[in-house]
Amino acid sequence: MQFSLAFIAEIESAIQNHQFELIQNKISQINDADIAKLLSNLSLNEQLTLIEYLPNAAYIFEFLSIEQQLQIAEHLNTPLLVKILSEMHSDDRTDLFKQLNYKLQQQVSQYLSPEIQQDILQLAKYPEESAGAIMSSDYVALPPNLNMVEAIEQIRTQAKERETLYLIYVIDQDKKLLGVVSLRQIILAEPQQKIVEIMSRDLIVGYSDEDQESIAEKLSYYDFIALPIVDENNQLLGIVTYDDAMDIAKEEATEDFLKSSAMSSGHVSIKSAPILYLYQKRVFWLVILVFGSLLSGFGIAHFEDIISANIVLVFFLPLLVGSGGNAGSQSATLMVRALAIGDVELKDWLYLIGRESLVGLCLGGTMALAVSVLGYFRGDAMVALVLAISMMGIVLLGCLIGMSLPFILNRLKLDPASASAPLVTSICDATGVIVYLCIASLLL
Amino acid sequence: MQFSLAFIAEIESAIQNHQFELIQNKISQINDADIAKLLSNLSLNEQLTLIEYLPNAAYIFEFLSIEQQLQIAEHLNTPLLVKILSEMHSDDRTDLFKQLNYKLQQQVSQYLSPEIQQDILQLAKYPEESAGAIMSSDYVALPPNLNMVEAIEQIRTQAKERETLYLIYVIDQDKKLLGVVSLRQIILAEPQQKIVEIMSRDLIVGYSDEDQESIAEKLSYYDFIALPIVDENNQLLGIVTYDDAMDIAKEEATEDFLKSSAMSSGHVSIKSAPILYLYQKRVFWLVILVFGSLLSGFGIAHFEDIISANIVLVFFLPLLVGSGGNAGSQSATLMVRALAIGDVELKDWLYLIGRESLVGLCLGGTMALAVSVLGYFRGDAMVALVLAISMMGIVLLGCLIGMSLPFILNRLKLDPASASAPLVTSICDATGVIVYLCIASLLL
Repeated sequence: MQFSLAFIAEIESAIQNHQFELIQNKISQINDADIAKLLSNLSLNEQLTLIEYLPNAAYIFEFLSIEQQLQIAEHLNTPLLVKILSEMHSDDRTDLFKQLNYKLQQQVSQYLSPEIQQDILQLAKYPEESAGAIMSSDYVALPPNLNMVEAIEQIRTQAKERETLYLIYVIDQDKKLLGVVSLRQIILAEPQQKIVEIMSRDLIVGYSDEDQESIAEKLSYYDFIALPIVDENNQLLGIVTYDDAMDIAKEEATEDFLKSSAMSSGHVSIKSAPILYLYQKRVFWLVILVFGSLLSGFGIAHFEDIISANIVLVFFLPLLVGSGGNAGSQSATLMVRALAIGDVELKDWLYLIGRESLVGLCLGGTMALAVSVLGYFRGDAMVALVLAISMMGIVLLGCLIGMSLPFILNRLKLDPASASAPLVTSICDATGVIVYLCIASLLL
Repeated sequence: MQFSLAFIAEIESAIQNHQFELIQNKISQINDADIAKLLSNLSLNEQLTLIEYLPNAAYIFEFLSIEQQLQIAEHLNTPLLVKILSEMHSDDRTDLFKQLNYKLQQQVSQYLSPEIQQDILQLAKYPEESAGAIMSSDYVALPPNLNMVEAIEQIRTQAKERETLYLIYVIDQDKKLLGVVSLRQIILAEPQQKIVEIMSRDLIVGYSDEDQESIAEKLSYYDFIALPIVDENNQLLGIVTYDDAMDIAKEEATEDFLKSSAMSSGHVSIKSAPILYLYQKRVFWLVILVFGSLLSGFGIAHFEDIISANIVLVFFLPLLVGSGGNAGSQSATLMVRALAIGDVELKDWLYLIGRESLVGLCLGGTMALAVSVLGYFRGDAMVALVLAISMMGIVLLGCLIGMSLPFILNRLKLDPASASAPLVTSICDATGVIVYLCIASLLL
């Protein structure tokens, strides 16, 4: 939903004139996610005033970015902040609380209920990007021996603030997970059936120390609304819901994108991140790659004589070297993506190398043809031959290097997404220089 | 879930010996998604035998890739294929039906019920990648005047084969969408309340001709389980569910990845795609980029004299030119990603250019320092100066080009993801050559 400037102006004037009934009328039929968007269009002071009058400020809060949440939290009066924190879902609450400054944490803590304090402590102890760090403790859990009428009664009492009522976890008195039952199954079952009769025991679970990416994969593979998170004793600790999985998938795709362009991973907004932070994220790989390009430089230095004698070779240098790098980075991207989505495994390596050689030969052949025509017109038949052979070899080598490097990184337990493409480009560049100038010295 | 080889062997021997009770015992507690994975481990003949005995073959089918579905469908006996098609959810059914060969379509059609035939015709008419093409007609819809007891009764009767019971759409007699109510709200309401009293009228909808990416964005932004799809008259046509959104997001991220490495979009599996198909996907941009590198070549040709006189310049050529390309492709990647996730808009351009200039100056400064040390040792103080100034200029220009190109492509209504990074690299390369050799001719 896009708000018109006129609508925003109306809201702003209503806030300034304290016409809160008018505001309530205007926004009562607007979705929480859209109210969050509306808030982002207001000044901080207007935000603070408006939030006081929003009945479900806690849920709207969850749709704001963590930076916006923090900014507002630091300026809210303590009682309101405590109320909002108490009503937020446990995963979002913990994320916000962890980011508050120490003083504010102390100030707020004393007013939070002991259960909530306990919950924050519990959830905050898990490492970043683990299932524990993203899970919520707001699930519905029931004992196995209830019948459907009792189950629905229980669900109704537990419902408030629960992330989802649609998957219900069946636990014993030690909180051990016995099974799962969906609200769909409950609605469709006979009133006197017991949970234990209809629940599914085929439990797909996540572990609290499991990586968030693997959790998102499971949710997406099984099309679940929520995944239960357990500890090593199968005790239920929390749930991760489908909307978290979508956020994680987006985050991870962004990270992989950044890595593919030689940037360190982590959350980067080019609009709001500090200049120095952007600098730090980018400088490391740029400098590494400088040393990569030095390899090409040394290759060139070694062949300075042949270059001085045939200066026309320099004309084609960027073209040949670039083509190897381009073909190689295509292969690397295909490979990284295939490894990421589980399309290929280490054991496929030899088979893929065979296929890639064929693709590389076809690509190299096409490019060799193109470049030899150019070479003939700018130089002579011999130059054309040197270029054609070099191009063929460079593209083929580029493809094979591009395909193998992600495999090797994966084998070494390194993240293949990390700078594969730029690393491949530098290696292909240096290889290209050497192949080109070797062939030139042999033939010219 | 990973199946052990022993387990697969047991299933295979049970299939060969027609011990179907044994199989049923073994797999009765396995999730449909995992049974689909198990199927993929069997030979086609084993798959065909097993499928006859799976009570919910239709749902298992939906977890197979479309290629696997097709292969099995072409070898199943017609009555079983008709049964499976009839029981599949309407979106998956339509996808499979569209891919069957004409003869099989005719053969199967005559046994499908008229409603299902109608449904396939309806859904099949929407263009690829539109909301219409991915939506399902298996939603629960109710009139507004029912009370909660009647509503639950209705939901129970409609439940079979519905994609979700958790969001229920409220429609009038013309199928116009009036509101939406969640099963959660129904469970929590008083039995005598009417749907019209509790339903939400703040309708977030998708349109049948809307792009699937935009539908996935809406689902993910609002954290909905399903999004209703309507026509221009607000008539309800179908729903798209959260699991479809996850699949779309994955597909689109893969496409963007491929484009970022100069490959044409579309589904590419490096493991199973035909060699020629892979070749076609890759060759177009490689050849385009050859002509891009020619620009660099012409730059070099123009300055052949200064190169012949100072052959040491060639040593640093890959380094300087490569750094501009690397910095530029970082900027382009950041920008493409930010545009894709909606973090920046066209109006932010000037502000971002300002920020990027600062980042570029910092990066360029660092790299200039590094390269001037190298230049001093390999050449002299003057070479060091040429290198430092060139590096500064090349990196800064690279950043600005990298940031602007996606904006310009976006402005021209072209997809900024498409080959931004490689295009940026070639433009930066050529710019780099010219800057470097111009500065060298001025100073040396």
